[in-house]
Amino acid sequence: MKYVRKKRLSADAYVDGILKGNRILLSKSITLIESSLPEDNDLAEEVLTTIIPFTGNSIRIGITGVPGVGKSTFIESFGKQVTSLNKKLAVLTIDPSSQRSKGAILGDKTRMETLSVDPLAYIRPSASGSALGGVAQKTRESMLLCEAAGFEVIFIETVGVGQSETSVYGMVDFFLLLMLAGAGDELQGIKKGIMEMADSIVITKADGENKKKTERAKIEYQNALHLFPLSKTGWYPKVLTCSAVHEKGIQEIWDLIIEHNQQLKEKGFFEIKRQEQNISWMHNIIKDTLSNRFFNNEKIQELIKEQEKMVATGQIPTIKAAKSLLSVYDSYRSSAD
Amino acid sequence: MKYVRKKRLSADAYVDGILKGNRILLSKSITLIESSLPEDNDLAEEVLTTIIPFTGNSIRIGITGVPGVGKSTFIESFGKQVTSLNKKLAVLTIDPSSQRSKGAILGDKTRMETLSVDPLAYIRPSASGSALGGVAQKTRESMLLCEAAGFEVIFIETVGVGQSETSVYGMVDFFLLLMLAGAGDELQGIKKGIMEMADSIVITKADGENKKKTERAKIEYQNALHLFPLSKTGWYPKVLTCSAVHEKGIQEIWDLIIEHNQQLKEKGFFEIKRQEQNISWMHNIIKDTLSNRFFNNEKIQELIKEQEKMVATGQIPTIKAAKSLLSVYDSYRSSAD
Repeated sequence: MKYVRKKRLSADAYVDGILKGNRILLSKSITLIESSLPEDNDLAEEVLTTIIPFTGNSIRIGITGVPGVGKSTFIESFGKQVTSLNKKLAVLTIDPSSQRSKGAILGDKTRMETLSVDPLAYIRPSASGSALGGVAQKTRESMLLCEAAGFEVIFIETVGVGQSETSVYGMVDFFLLLMLAGAGDELQGIKKGIMEMADSIVITKADGENKKKTERAKIEYQNALHLFPLSKTGWYPKVLTCSAVHEKGIQEIWDLIIEHNQQLKEKGFFEIKRQEQNISWMHNIIKDTLSNRFFNNEKIQELIKEQEKMVATGQIPTIKAAKSLLSVYDSYRSSAD
Repeated sequence: MKYVRKKRLSADAYVDGILKGNRILLSKSITLIESSLPEDNDLAEEVLTTIIPFTGNSIRIGITGVPGVGKSTFIESFGKQVTSLNKKLAVLTIDPSSQRSKGAILGDKTRMETLSVDPLAYIRPSASGSALGGVAQKTRESMLLCEAAGFEVIFIETVGVGQSETSVYGMVDFFLLLMLAGAGDELQGIKKGIMEMADSIVITKADGENKKKTERAKIEYQNALHLFPLSKTGWYPKVLTCSAVHEKGIQEIWDLIIEHNQQLKEKGFFEIKRQEQNISWMHNIIKDTLSNRFFNNEKIQELIKEQEKMVATGQIPTIKAAKSLLSVYDSYRSSAD
């Protein structure tokens, strides 16, 4: 492993580069964080620990929506809106599927042609490693590195649909859900509960023939959101429409995010939300680690399918199966100690 | 502990009593299951293992709603509907708060005056123990005992609002959400995401002056549900109204549940849903156990508040805090082995 070590810089060199806004070193440090080598982990931890005081100064925006909703086009258009205000923007992608399908995110920069050549924008494709806490973990840390490098607005985009939305929700200030008008089949892909996490629903493709449909959808969704419980921050989620290709309605989305930001800051909820996110993040890392260790344990993997089958068909009580797996795990671990 | 042991019967005696539908032995076996004594656990496990082949033959219905929605009145009325069809009904209550507030469930039987004297009905207040997996765990096992004792319909009622809804959702065939018309403040208590779990929303108190309001609410909720993704079983959640005091609309709810039951059975989803519930239940028990062991560990409890504070205020990276707690835990456990 010695030859790998040679390629690495010192923690100071990374930190220095990041704080100077050096993109090559920012990218390298994100790669470092994504690495699954134990030695890299120590170095990554050192870098992260050092940059912590310089983080937290961005507006963190989660953007999600089913494939076909026009996410890339939206991010291009909305990203340009952000950089036109002379703000430094980082776009991070969280894509749990990228491990399996690999190629899925290769097209990230071509997906966002204009933004990728914008000097104020930095686009980073998804992490594909998944050690402690998985992909979301890496994305969260990448976000902190971007903040330390001076990025003022961070987009965290989810690719595809799945569990990642909840993770993103837990790391952003504002959660934006893109939706298509004409509901029906397109909606099938949206995981239950996601609509309720949204700080705003934006109905895309409000142009041409589609315009009437989006206006109707806007009213429907706004009515539906009325039935949801108000979040404890007192923020009332708003439904907007936009046309990314005609650049209509984009400014309004930014204004809404600023309004949300100010309102939460005035009421003190902004800081509280971030602190709570940090604490529950720590709990989640711990729970995930404990759970991953268990389910990835070779002895458990050998036994669990059989137990699952017996539990599913009711041959043994669930509790008994769980307990017996737990005691196998315990004796296996203590013999390994 | 020897003197406690004397009070206990043999596993066979419990099982025999349960299978004969003996309510005293059913109640005793539920008490046994709720016990937190390790010796009781072994016996409880033996009883559960033996009765497993006799379980699963009921319709499991989860009933939830905010305080004030009229849950007790509804259960009285709906329960009478069930027993009027000559079906044996068990009503179990899941109440995570009962550990703290104790008295909370003492009134269970007076809450349901008619039902509690109905020979076909069996009402059992919430478990208050919380060993492996908590209160929901006990309720789930009590449900199995009731099934073995020949109960054909089980209501699992949640008291108050909180996490218990998700647990109930994971153990029933049909999830019924009671709602009040005139939304607004009453809705605040409903946890995000609950509406989306419902197989049916029933708007209560559809009588007198309230009738128009409930009809309007029915349409609103039905429209809102249209915006939700369809569940993979293909069941389309329906909104109904009822007046428990005037016993209006009660029959329709039962009919809907039967329709749901038949539809899912025809498509094969009924069995699949139950099998999936069993497997994810096993995973949950394991995850909860691992997590409870960690967070209840005395060394961790000594250290975690400080780590949380430092994480919240950004003094150390979340991942570092999590890792350091995990390594303390590991060394503590291996020295204890």
